[in-house]
Amino acid sequence: MPRLVMKFGGTSVADLERIRNAAARVKREVDNGYEVAVIVSAMSGKTNELVGWVRDAANPPGANAPGLYDAREYDAVVASGEQVTAGLMALTLQELGVPARSWLGWQVPVRTTNAHGAARIEEIETANLDRKFDEGLHAVIAGFQGVGPDGRITTLGRGGSDTTAVAFAAALGAERCDIYTDVDGVYTTDPRITPKARKLDRIAYEEMLELASLGAKVLQTRSVELAMRYKVRLQVLSSFEDLPGTLVCDEEEIMESNVVSGVAYSRDEAKMTLISVADRPGIAAAIFGALSDAAINVDMIVQNISEEGRTDMTFSLAVDDVPRASQALENAKTAGTINYRELEADPDVAKVSIVGIGMRSHTGVARKMFAALAADGVNIKVITTSEIKVSVLIDRKYLELAVQSLHDAFELEKAP
Amino acid sequence: MPRLVMKFGGTSVADLERIRNAAARVKREVDNGYEVAVIVSAMSGKTNELVGWVRDAANPPGANAPGLYDAREYDAVVASGEQVTAGLMALTLQELGVPARSWLGWQVPVRTTNAHGAARIEEIETANLDRKFDEGLHAVIAGFQGVGPDGRITTLGRGGSDTTAVAFAAALGAERCDIYTDVDGVYTTDPRITPKARKLDRIAYEEMLELASLGAKVLQTRSVELAMRYKVRLQVLSSFEDLPGTLVCDEEEIMESNVVSGVAYSRDEAKMTLISVADRPGIAAAIFGALSDAAINVDMIVQNISEEGRTDMTFSLAVDDVPRASQALENAKTAGTINYRELEADPDVAKVSIVGIGMRSHTGVARKMFAALAADGVNIKVITTSEIKVSVLIDRKYLELAVQSLHDAFELEKAP
Repeated sequence: MPRLVMKFGGTSVADLERIRNAAARVKREVDNGYEVAVIVSAMSGKTNELVGWVRDAANPPGANAPGLYDAREYDAVVASGEQVTAGLMALTLQELGVPARSWLGWQVPVRTTNAHGAARIEEIETANLDRKFDEGLHAVIAGFQGVGPDGRITTLGRGGSDTTAVAFAAALGAERCDIYTDVDGVYTTDPRITPKARKLDRIAYEEMLELASLGAKVLQTRSVELAMRYKVRLQVLSSFEDLPGTLVCDEEEIMESNVVSGVAYSRDEAKMTLISVADRPGIAAAIFGALSDAAINVDMIVQNISEEGRTDMTFSLAVDDVPRASQALENAKTAGTINYRELEADPDVAKVSIVGIGMRSHTGVARKMFAALAADGVNIKVITTSEIKVSVLIDRKYLELAVQSLHDAFELEKAP
Repeated sequence: MPRLVMKFGGTSVADLERIRNAAARVKREVDNGYEVAVIVSAMSGKTNELVGWVRDAANPPGANAPGLYDAREYDAVVASGEQVTAGLMALTLQELGVPARSWLGWQVPVRTTNAHGAARIEEIETANLDRKFDEGLHAVIAGFQGVGPDGRITTLGRGGSDTTAVAFAAALGAERCDIYTDVDGVYTTDPRITPKARKLDRIAYEEMLELASLGAKVLQTRSVELAMRYKVRLQVLSSFEDLPGTLVCDEEEIMESNVVSGVAYSRDEAKMTLISVADRPGIAAAIFGALSDAAINVDMIVQNISEEGRTDMTFSLAVDDVPRASQALENAKTAGTINYRELEADPDVAKVSIVGIGMRSHTGVARKMFAALAADGVNIKVITTSEIKVSVLIDRKYLELAVQSLHDAFELEKAP
């Protein structure tokens, strides 16, 4: 029998009524002849509640400083959220006449690394599951969790249920992995910015990865990487409406596409510039090493020659990280590992990107982008490009204008 | 190192502040030189919430009839409550500087029968625990749960955390099993009925068993049976006050005791009488077989000869069971398996009992009881006796009077 993985996120299983609604969708696919593995998240809000308790337990009122906590205990507590939903989903399916049982991570087992709180799946043993499928028993699997080499519960990090779903789809040889969520697919851009935004029928893995990492929070990045590696066909669709969703698939499955598939953005960016840095080998490593040691994620990096033997170094980062980045750089200057005349920070920028696998075979895409922005008076501060993406940093106040301008320029409202 | 089991019930771990309070008590015993195994219940109210969800999932609005549900899924859902508390308690202990880790039933493992929802502990493997104790790591164990022969989570039934605690105390060879709860010990009678009620320093297992089964809900009956079998010294004490509790122990450990240790009562009893039953062999079996088939618990039974070849049969039961009992008996009469002239039900009775191991070696205890009740004008309807207990059924309106009268008559306010 063909197999299907169906994953329901937190808002799709937020209460018993929604669990019943999700179960009815599962029943439909069972009636269509599939062996179904259902992956469930915790009821929405539950994970935050549990995480809050863990933090408060480790940092009681009056504690000296926010302390670290034992990630193994964090995992034991937080994994209980998916455990509850898995049991309730199995009961609800049974009530609808669908034979099903719940599986916790350690029961399958889903073997992971020992990195509690951010573990990676190493192996899914499917023998137990296969045997139960043969008995006609569909599977409800607690997402986001596994068991480490020490026999203790691990979790995969926030959003890990998407990763669980894709990993099971690969391990079970499922025909498709359907991700039910509170949006009904992947759009050419954020519909809150322009009503012209159009839902895509299909999108390539590479494009989805760029969109996900650019802040279009439909799928967790790691789950898309995994889907790409194992060629798992991923469908994103709404658990509240009966509408076709968006299929994330290999580009060979996509017959026709626009040169640009979508316009993504990231609102809360900042730009920092180190002015007049000594231009010598190893200086970039020293600067970004200092930032990396402070656990700061740097995104775009641009280096300009400014004067004889000196250079300006510009980079972008999340706006919240600016104070810590300033501190790290000043410390490095004091320690003598780097040297600069001045440090400028612009906390009011945003990033806008166009993404499309069609760019590989079309020229002039970047030029068209820059022209469109220029025509609308949007000044570009930093540019970076990759094979299937062009990103620009602009003043935050122009963000909505830029997105609409680019959506219009590439006529994304039209199907290919 | 000597070992100690400390069990905290739901009200003692109801929120993070109370968990901290409980953890401070654990730290004190660790500082006293004990290796401690902490057994935790779910936060109070949590189990009821989870059970409610399970029932609603199995019986959605509009379902035809209250359906049965899969007890294996019930267990997976409900066991999550103790899982959360165990993790939070371990984190809180760590924050206080006590090295500790959480253990779920399947991790220890606590092997149980396959009777999901009401499993019995068959074996506790302590090798893993012993190894961690040797590393200086104290144990926080999720109560109420284990793992069945099928590798799925089982629960022991309501109140099962007391049983978990006693079973661990036996398996670990603990010096004592301290049960922290919201009462500070076992009293000579309910202090709400008479302020003269006195907290007992010590009470024998057998007495505690009689008190527990008579409705003094301090300890779960099964946990006391287990403690008696393995000679586990049980201490009941308050988690909110620093007061000595009551030690439940072997009677050899009790030097001095009153003839009567306590007065127990059960308020919501009913009395039923079958008048003029054919007095032939097998008739009692037929009557109580019919009631047993209807899952009705009968408590006291009295048979009187009334006339030639006929007898009256009287028994007591929970008042809520009267309608179902009447129905079962009428059905049996219709079916011809039993025969009686009339069925009388008195739903307004209560049971009062005196309990004490001293009765074994003292005579005249029952007579003293009857005399005290008679002196206060309390009419006795039914009497039963056991080696260490005398119970009487009386009109419910006399309940408080009878308890006070007996407490006074046996001078229970005085220490032995």
